[in-house]
Amino acid sequence: MEGGEPHGLRSQKTDPGRGPDAVIEDIGRMVTAATQDVLGKESGVKNKVLGAGIGCPGSIDRSTGVVRTTPNLGWIDYPIRSRVTSLLDLPTVLDNDANCATYAEWWQGSGKGAEHLIGITLGTGIGGGMMLRGKIVRGASGSVGEVGHMTIDYNGRLCSCGNRGCLEAYASGSSIALRAIEGIRSGSKSILTELVDGDLDHISSALIFEALKLGDEYAHEIITETAKLLGIGIANLINTLNPDVIVVVGGVVGAGDYLFQAIRSEAQTRTFRSAFQRCDIVPGQFPLTAGIIGAAGIFISELTDS
Amino acid sequence: MEGGEPHGLRSQKTDPGRGPDAVIEDIGRMVTAATQDVLGKESGVKNKVLGAGIGCPGSIDRSTGVVRTTPNLGWIDYPIRSRVTSLLDLPTVLDNDANCATYAEWWQGSGKGAEHLIGITLGTGIGGGMMLRGKIVRGASGSVGEVGHMTIDYNGRLCSCGNRGCLEAYASGSSIALRAIEGIRSGSKSILTELVDGDLDHISSALIFEALKLGDEYAHEIITETAKLLGIGIANLINTLNPDVIVVVGGVVGAGDYLFQAIRSEAQTRTFRSAFQRCDIVPGQFPLTAGIIGAAGIFISELTDS
Repeated sequence: MEGGEPHGLRSQKTDPGRGPDAVIEDIGRMVTAATQDVLGKESGVKNKVLGAGIGCPGSIDRSTGVVRTTPNLGWIDYPIRSRVTSLLDLPTVLDNDANCATYAEWWQGSGKGAEHLIGITLGTGIGGGMMLRGKIVRGASGSVGEVGHMTIDYNGRLCSCGNRGCLEAYASGSSIALRAIEGIRSGSKSILTELVDGDLDHISSALIFEALKLGDEYAHEIITETAKLLGIGIANLINTLNPDVIVVVGGVVGAGDYLFQAIRSEAQTRTFRSAFQRCDIVPGQFPLTAGIIGAAGIFISELTDS
Repeated sequence: MEGGEPHGLRSQKTDPGRGPDAVIEDIGRMVTAATQDVLGKESGVKNKVLGAGIGCPGSIDRSTGVVRTTPNLGWIDYPIRSRVTSLLDLPTVLDNDANCATYAEWWQGSGKGAEHLIGITLGTGIGGGMMLRGKIVRGASGSVGEVGHMTIDYNGRLCSCGNRGCLEAYASGSSIALRAIEGIRSGSKSILTELVDGDLDHISSALIFEALKLGDEYAHEIITETAKLLGIGIANLINTLNPDVIVVVGGVVGAGDYLFQAIRSEAQTRTFRSAFQRCDIVPGQFPLTAGIIGAAGIFISELTDS
């Protein structure tokens, strides 16, 4: 199947405080601007655009097109699909953003055409998705792939979900930053302190990757530990699911090859040899746009299926 | 599909020291005796028996019918399928024993007909299997369901695989016994000490379940902790896979309702509400014979498929 190249890409920071309707109106404006970029101003969008795919974080009910909850945006039972459909006057398909990202990497990316692929999205939180023989595996209530809340240390760090030792409490972008901040507050020396002019709360995972590239030893230590923790989570997936490919997408991919080598090394230690050898652990080809490409891909796949 | 009732059941302790050929000859004798029980001595087995299913622990290559490794028996690259086929002079099918047990519970047991079922086998080790829409999910190298080596505490107890914090290092039959022995050696009081006449090495998980039923407080503590640890492992499966049913088979089921209530309670704490609510966590209907029933079921299913 063709596709996978974004044209007329638009992005904008979401301001959840303005409520979902305002966010959807912004999205409508961005879609109009993007389609005009690609098709020209005079063109009737309706005649040339088949429809839209919507990727949304949180718990989704695909049958009703409703977002049940999105912890980071604070939306509850919001009928996003019908709102977008009527705003654009086009057919739409709704899916979870981690499913979209996973689909993109299977459709056009690092795990193209894999028989059994698991996607892991590393951002503010950690999510994931699963493709088996060309289909997204959704599960009994549509929440396959909540790998961020996999326990890897049951007496460990407190997670935002209230439990201890979730993978997300260690290896999400914000948890990586938090671990670094805690370490520096406890006396670890790092170039990070200078990079934020002493205001440690400004340390982000992106900045830690930058410090790593500048040769900072403490950043190296934090990333090595992060890779070990991600490697443990990935080993759990390999032991349980024996997939062909595990694709990791999101900003953390910015840490580069070093991170992936260390992830693979830890995963190898904790898995059966034949299962490890058969599983590629790779960075996503679309670290920042996988969700968008996948939403379009899922729309196209459902059009073709029906 | 009909079936699922074992007739003419035979079982015998495996003596791995005698080597695989001797074990297979024993199996041949048991099959002959069992079929004679059911069909009568004079009957030609060949005419009335369609074939045999073989369930075997360890890493299996189904395409060649070879057992790659069985850690507990010490077999390496043993061509079990061809040996059994020529001994019985019947068509045979080979599968991993945990896949067989999982299939049995999906085919005729506690998770009959479930869309997405995960089986967990608790014995000397911990294994598992997965059914999705009526098919066993096998994975890239046939090792789906190695849930015993899921890390739940990455700095935790040493596992026989050499890693730290595997579920199996806490909750397999032998690990449960080991934890109890360690506790008693460190001063915990228990009726178990009397039940084994002071020879603590004779404490088994079955004996701990017996002590629990006798009202022993320390056995209660050990089982409560075991349930918590199993609940963590099961929560990881629910978060990752969002199945309809998780069936637990093996001797541990002998601990009864209390164990399952405590497992569910821990799993609920660590999963999303909708995923937990949609997942039954149940003891197997065939705690000790699931492997046998499933081997037969897989044989029948492949006969019908082809």
